[in-house]
Amino acid sequence: MKEKIDLLGAGLIGSLLAIYLKKRGLDVSIYEKRKDWRQVNATGEGRSINMALSYRGWKALEKAGIKDKVLPHIQPMHGRRIHDEHGNTYFQPYGKENQAIYSISRNSFNKILLDEAEALGANLHFEHKVERVNVGDREVTFSLADGATKSIQTEVLIGSDGAYSSLRNAFQSQLRFNFNQQYISHGYKELSIPPTPEGEFAMDPNALHIWPRGKFMLIALPNQDKSFTCTLFLPFEGYKVSFENIHDDQDILQIFKTHFNDAQALMPTLIRDFNSNPTSALINTECYPWTENNTLLIGDAAHAMVPFYGQGMNCGFEDCFILDGLLEKYGTFSWDLVFQKFQKGRKPDTDAICQLAMDNFVEMSDNVADPKFLIRKKIEARLYELYPKEWVPLYSMVTFSDMKYSEAYTIGKIQEKVMDQVMSDPLITQNWDRLDYEDILHKVEVAGAV
Amino acid sequence: MKEKIDLLGAGLIGSLLAIYLKKRGLDVSIYEKRKDWRQVNATGEGRSINMALSYRGWKALEKAGIKDKVLPHIQPMHGRRIHDEHGNTYFQPYGKENQAIYSISRNSFNKILLDEAEALGANLHFEHKVERVNVGDREVTFSLADGATKSIQTEVLIGSDGAYSSLRNAFQSQLRFNFNQQYISHGYKELSIPPTPEGEFAMDPNALHIWPRGKFMLIALPNQDKSFTCTLFLPFEGYKVSFENIHDDQDILQIFKTHFNDAQALMPTLIRDFNSNPTSALINTECYPWTENNTLLIGDAAHAMVPFYGQGMNCGFEDCFILDGLLEKYGTFSWDLVFQKFQKGRKPDTDAICQLAMDNFVEMSDNVADPKFLIRKKIEARLYELYPKEWVPLYSMVTFSDMKYSEAYTIGKIQEKVMDQVMSDPLITQNWDRLDYEDILHKVEVAGAV
Repeated sequence: MKEKIDLLGAGLIGSLLAIYLKKRGLDVSIYEKRKDWRQVNATGEGRSINMALSYRGWKALEKAGIKDKVLPHIQPMHGRRIHDEHGNTYFQPYGKENQAIYSISRNSFNKILLDEAEALGANLHFEHKVERVNVGDREVTFSLADGATKSIQTEVLIGSDGAYSSLRNAFQSQLRFNFNQQYISHGYKELSIPPTPEGEFAMDPNALHIWPRGKFMLIALPNQDKSFTCTLFLPFEGYKVSFENIHDDQDILQIFKTHFNDAQALMPTLIRDFNSNPTSALINTECYPWTENNTLLIGDAAHAMVPFYGQGMNCGFEDCFILDGLLEKYGTFSWDLVFQKFQKGRKPDTDAICQLAMDNFVEMSDNVADPKFLIRKKIEARLYELYPKEWVPLYSMVTFSDMKYSEAYTIGKIQEKVMDQVMSDPLITQNWDRLDYEDILHKVEVAGAV
Repeated sequence: MKEKIDLLGAGLIGSLLAIYLKKRGLDVSIYEKRKDWRQVNATGEGRSINMALSYRGWKALEKAGIKDKVLPHIQPMHGRRIHDEHGNTYFQPYGKENQAIYSISRNSFNKILLDEAEALGANLHFEHKVERVNVGDREVTFSLADGATKSIQTEVLIGSDGAYSSLRNAFQSQLRFNFNQQYISHGYKELSIPPTPEGEFAMDPNALHIWPRGKFMLIALPNQDKSFTCTLFLPFEGYKVSFENIHDDQDILQIFKTHFNDAQALMPTLIRDFNSNPTSALINTECYPWTENNTLLIGDAAHAMVPFYGQGMNCGFEDCFILDGLLEKYGTFSWDLVFQKFQKGRKPDTDAICQLAMDNFVEMSDNVADPKFLIRKKIEARLYELYPKEWVPLYSMVTFSDMKYSEAYTIGKIQEKVMDQVMSDPLITQNWDRLDYEDILHKVEVAGAV
């Protein structure tokens, strides 16, 4: 008899995990509260946001054997294109010439993964909304579309059900469970830039566009249909430019004309988008333990992060990769052992990336527009060029490697300290390309970051 | 028409708050999930734990006009009596000669307050278990004893429903709500020491007894019936002496004979108590905001703390005192204004006492047994004697004054730094009563703590 395993949530993480588990020969069921959005108009259901795939994500897709099916759907972004208030743009590469992150629509990506899980034999149960989970006897009660309820008893239960996870809610009230949820002061609104009348991209298609304005910003990621999905990040309140101060269409136009004039010229549906799309909040959650009685939290359910490092999905995919590695090593003889090893090994890394994501808002919305920051980035790029093994910039360690997030975090802190010292030279703007780079590297080595 | 106000929870804080609100002429209803425990055997329902009333609590009781009814039920404790491993005891006064904290049984105290609230006209609704709260339209749905459900629409709703508050749970899923819950590594078990065969207290009745053993401890508070309620604090796991390593009666006896021999001799029902009483966890919660749409969290619902500073109840009572002060000042014209002022003014203070309570476990279970700590306390006592206005020990600021907790916290940190310096003298054990006390005070003054 095949071992049965039940997953909550058929999002990106749940779908990829189902693929891994099917490939290990298990009997996998997924319970999802939404309708099967693959049958309905893709833009009508779910979020239109696009994701940025990077190294950790690719690695997990490759091991799951699904990389080739994803490749046709991506749009590479080799760097940030910064838009200043006068409409000038500047390009900041993310890494080396061949390095990029890849924009992909959440909906089509989710469909690819879920189709594959289904093709491999996973049982999909849509319109199953979790009403409660009893962790002690692993009983899950769902409400169905017709209003009926249904309970199942599970042998192994995994909550891949996102930032507002039902399994985590059950942990919170039923276990000695440490939990922290924090909303940041900013919310976001999705907007869009359509293709030009000629059917072309309206801006550079190989970049993540940023309009950094200090306390707020606009970003745009390219889509395969030659449109861009834009996200406006504003404080909810407490500032002149904030969601609370937008009362009518004039206020919207006023903000865009003043701060995003070049973008606004490309947004014929701005007012309609703004008024019809919701204003969403951004949450960070950290918790522990992730496992109890053969149940496990994974992905956003275990560690929801803010989107400013583009790592939420990649980190969740890496969770799946690591969990699969543990199953490879220890088998399914003791799920408890595997889940315990998973949480102990992984928790410091997800704490690190949650923190980095939080910190990166300041980098994206403020620093990238600062001339001194640009020099700093140039010095770091030079160090990377000169010492490609010894000085890897933090962004590259996170985005283009599979180094443990916690290790990247620690090394990043040391680099930051050394760079603060380098940048404290009052003549740095003139001297930056005549620095003693060997000495800088030496400082980092002494501090133990190499 | 009188303004209607609904409270969730008829515990100590809900009952005292109801008294205050009735005295302001409001129409007050309390909804409580338990049966009316005043009619049933008092020891059969609720927790038998006793509370330690101190200055802030008394002040709130006095303003509510209920102090005289409480006075006959208390047992003063003038200090800690420390029990070492050989059965020797040492007395450490809490403050000056006339200062004490007062042991009172939670059950009888709750009865006094609730009787008074009822006598003043509060409507009590027992066996109303909150199933859900819709914060947006202030609708509360209860399940009743017979299984039926009942919904009410409230105008003003206050959650005085404790560390696992239903209103707070609603905030968590319905608002942009920052929330942190943290369980500490220790749990507790209640035990008891009965009166002697002659009907007397088995130990000094005017002290809080502590058996400090580093990573664990036993404490005992006197009751009016000449018994003591004891609380054993042990780590759940990870240490030799921990709850996970107690498997049978022999293990219990072994721990008590080794570490609490003098107490064990006074505990004829030790084994029975240990086996029949639950092992309980200790939670700290911090959250924000406390108010939304004319609803408010108060007491443990807003800030549950661990019990090691004896301030949980006193802090909750002070919440009521402060809220009543705001109602006195601003009236009930705008509950929103009052609730906003309450949360903004009070939050830094409850954060401070939560932190102090967490830190105090180390003081109670470890420091109090350290000879150097005793000298430190003597130096501080001397400073207090010499400069009664300028150097008030932290414990006294918290326990015997109504200084803001946040201010006490800040001053305490400065005192701690100065005392660390004083104690770093290697000859301090010989020199402590020949110190230049004026100089110590001067250091504190320079740091701004006077």
